Amino acid sequence: MVNEKYMKRAITLAKKALGYTSPNPLVGAVIVKDNKIIGEGYHHKAGEPHAERMALADCKESPKGATIYVTLEPCCHQGRTPPCTDAIIEAGIQHVVIGSSDPNPLVMGKGIKTLRERGITVTSHFLQKECDEINQVFFHYITTKMPYVALKYAMTADGKIATVTGASRWISNEASRQHAHKLRHQYSSILVGIETVLQDDPLLNCRLEHAVQPIRIICDSHLRIPLESQICKTAKVYETIIAYANDTMGKKGVLESLGLTLWQLPDENNKVSLPNLLKKLGENGVDSVLVEGGGSIHFSFLQSHLAQKLYIYFAPKIFGGKDAKTPVGGRGIIHPDDAFRLKLLHSQVLNGDILLEYEIESKQGNKKAIF
Amino acid sequence: MVNEKYMKRAITLAKKALGYTSPNPLVGAVIVKDNKIIGEGYHHKAGEPHAERMALADCKESPKGATIYVTLEPCCHQGRTPPCTDAIIEAGIQHVVIGSSDPNPLVMGKGIKTLRERGITVTSHFLQKECDEINQVFFHYITTKMPYVALKYAMTADGKIATVTGASRWISNEASRQHAHKLRHQYSSILVGIETVLQDDPLLNCRLEHAVQPIRIICDSHLRIPLESQICKTAKVYETIIAYANDTMGKKGVLESLGLTLWQLPDENNKVSLPNLLKKLGENGVDSVLVEGGGSIHFSFLQSHLAQKLYIYFAPKIFGGKDAKTPVGGRGIIHPDDAFRLKLLHSQVLNGDILLEYEIESKQGNKKAIF
Repeated sequence: MVNEKYMKRAITLAKKALGYTSPNPLVGAVIVKDNKIIGEGYHHKAGEPHAERMALADCKESPKGATIYVTLEPCCHQGRTPPCTDAIIEAGIQHVVIGSSDPNPLVMGKGIKTLRERGITVTSHFLQKECDEINQVFFHYITTKMPYVALKYAMTADGKIATVTGASRWISNEASRQHAHKLRHQYSSILVGIETVLQDDPLLNCRLEHAVQPIRIICDSHLRIPLESQICKTAKVYETIIAYANDTMGKKGVLESLGLTLWQLPDENNKVSLPNLLKKLGENGVDSVLVEGGGSIHFSFLQSHLAQKLYIYFAPKIFGGKDAKTPVGGRGIIHPDDAFRLKLLHSQVLNGDILLEYEIESKQGNKKAIF
Repeated sequence: MVNEKYMKRAITLAKKALGYTSPNPLVGAVIVKDNKIIGEGYHHKAGEPHAERMALADCKESPKGATIYVTLEPCCHQGRTPPCTDAIIEAGIQHVVIGSSDPNPLVMGKGIKTLRERGITVTSHFLQKECDEINQVFFHYITTKMPYVALKYAMTADGKIATVTGASRWISNEASRQHAHKLRHQYSSILVGIETVLQDDPLLNCRLEHAVQPIRIICDSHLRIPLESQICKTAKVYETIIAYANDTMGKKGVLESLGLTLWQLPDENNKVSLPNLLKKLGENGVDSVLVEGGGSIHFSFLQSHLAQKLYIYFAPKIFGGKDAKTPVGGRGIIHPDDAFRLKLLHSQVLNGDILLEYEIESKQGNKKAIF
C-alpha cells in the first residue's frame, strides 16, 4: 500500500533547497492518488510555505482521499505559517506517510496525534534513516541549541595539508574544490583559525552562482589579523565575526570600523572558548559551522567533542616531509586506544580525488542519541 | 565465438597460485568445446607444469578441435618444462585465445607465431588489461631485472602512523592486518628501515597457514640492529638480509654467526644504496619487495623512483598531534606541483577500514611503458 518510490521522490524534492532553508529543516512532500502523483512540493526557505502546503497547492485534481508522503512529521503549531495538520485535514487527505519524527519540542509526535484524532491513517518512521540524514543539522541545532559542526580538509595520500614550506595550492583537484564550494553554500558559516589567515590569506566566500554566502568566523585569540588581509578588506561585503580572547594591541575599534563583528570570548588559558563561541552562534541563529582548519583548530574541536562530521578530500599524490603540515595537529592523543572514532557515511570519487564523509562518534563512542 | 566468461574463469584459476609461483607468472587456462568447459588448470609453482598442460591433463574428453583460453601467451622454448606450444599442437586444439603477451624475450610473440604457422587460429590481447593486472610483478621483473616494489602503510584519517609518543598498535583493524599478511605471503620479500626495528621490534613473518615466508630485508646503514631484536633471534628460521653501508662497530661477524646475510652497499652519502640493493636482489631471484616503512625509507624509495605500487590501510580514527609520525617523511618536496602522482587501482572497505591500492606513476608522469 505504501511505496518507497514516493518517499524517495519526496527526499529528492527536499534536497533541492539544500543551503536555503536555515534555520528550518529540508522537507519534501508528494501526494498520491490511484498510484499516480497528483501534486508535489518542498519547503523553499524560512518564511515561505511548508512542503505539505506546496504539494497541496500543486494538485492537479482533488486530494480528497489521497495519500501524502512527507519526509518530516507535519507541524501542528502556529509559526510564521499556519499548522500543516490543518491543511491536510481540510484537504480530505486519508493517509499520511511520515519519514522523520520532528524533534522540535513544539511538534514531537503532536502532529501525528492530531491527524489520528481526526481519523486519518498515519504511517510513521517510513524510510526514516534516509529522511533523518538530510536534516542532521536541523535535528542537532533544535535539540542542543548549538550549531552542527563539520571539519573539512584536503590532504595528500601521505596525510599532508601543505608541503614542508607551507605551500598548499593545490592539493585537491578542480572537482573537489567545486564540491567544497557547495559545502560553503550548504553550511551557514565557515570558521578558520588565525594561522590559516596568516598563511593563506583566504577570502572564504562561496563562488557558486545563487549561493547563500556563509558567515565568516575567525578564531583569533590575540587579534593578530592583518588589516590588509582579504578578510578585513571584504568585511563590508561578507558578514564576518572575529572571536578573540584579549585585545592587547588595541585593534578592536579599527576592526569594527572595517565592518567586522568582534566577540570577546576568553577561556581560562586566554584563548577563544569554543563552547562559548558555539553557544553564542546558536543564540544568534547560526545552525551550522564548517571548520576549514588549520590543524590545531581541528584538534581543539575534536578534543572539546564539539564536532559531528568530517569531510576529507583525499588527493592521489604524495608530498613527503616529516615536518610538512598535518590536518589535525595540537598535542594529539597518547594511546592509540584513545583515538577519536569515525564512522564512514559516504565515499565518492571526484575525478581521481576521493571524498570521504565521516560521522565523528561522540565521547562515549556511540552515535548521537537522536539517530 | 570467443566468450569473456571463459577468460575470466582462467584468471580466477591463475590467482589461486598467488604468492606461490615466483619467479614465474600466474597463468590459468580453460579448454572449451561446444560451449562447455572440458578441462581447466593453472600453474601451481615454478618447476611444475604450465597452465596449458594442467588443463590438457584435466580434459574429460578429447580436446581435438577445442578452444583454449590462456591468460598469458604460451611459451615456445624449452625451460624447466617443455614448450606449451608443442602440447597445444599435439592435442589438436583449433583456436587459442590469449590475454597477455609474454614480455619474456625468449617468448615475445614467438609463441603466437609458432601456433599460427601450424594452422591454429589465435586471438590475442583478449581481456588483456585484466590478464596483465595479475602479473605486474612478473612483467616488471622480467623486463627490468629489478624487483617490483610496493610501499605499504596503515594510517589514521589524519595521516598518522603513530601517536606523538610513537605508539602504533593498532592503527588498522583485524581485517586489515589479516589482509596485510596476505601481502606478505604474496611478495617475495619485506623491507623495513632500521628505525622501524628499533621502534617496534617486529618479527616480519607471515602468520597465515601454508604461507610462503618472505625474505626479510633490513636497511641498516650503520649496523645498529640490536642482537636481542626479534629479527636477530629468528634469523635461522626466516631468511634475513641486512643491507648496510659501513660496519664501524665491527658487528658483521657476530650478525653472520646468528644466521643473517650481510650485504655492504654504500652510496656516496654513506647510506645504503637502494638502486644497488634492488639490483642485487634481482640478481638473487627476488622479484618483489613489500616496503613496510618507516616514513623516511618510503620517501627514499619515492625520491629514487624505485617504487611501483602503494597500499594504504586507512583507519576511521584520528590521533592528532603536530609531531605525530607521518607515513612518508624525509625532506619532502617543496612545490605541490612536484608531488609524486598516484593512480587509484582499487579500493575496498575492510570492516570499516578502507584499503586503497595505487599505482605510483613514473617520473615522467606516465604509466609504465609495458601496460
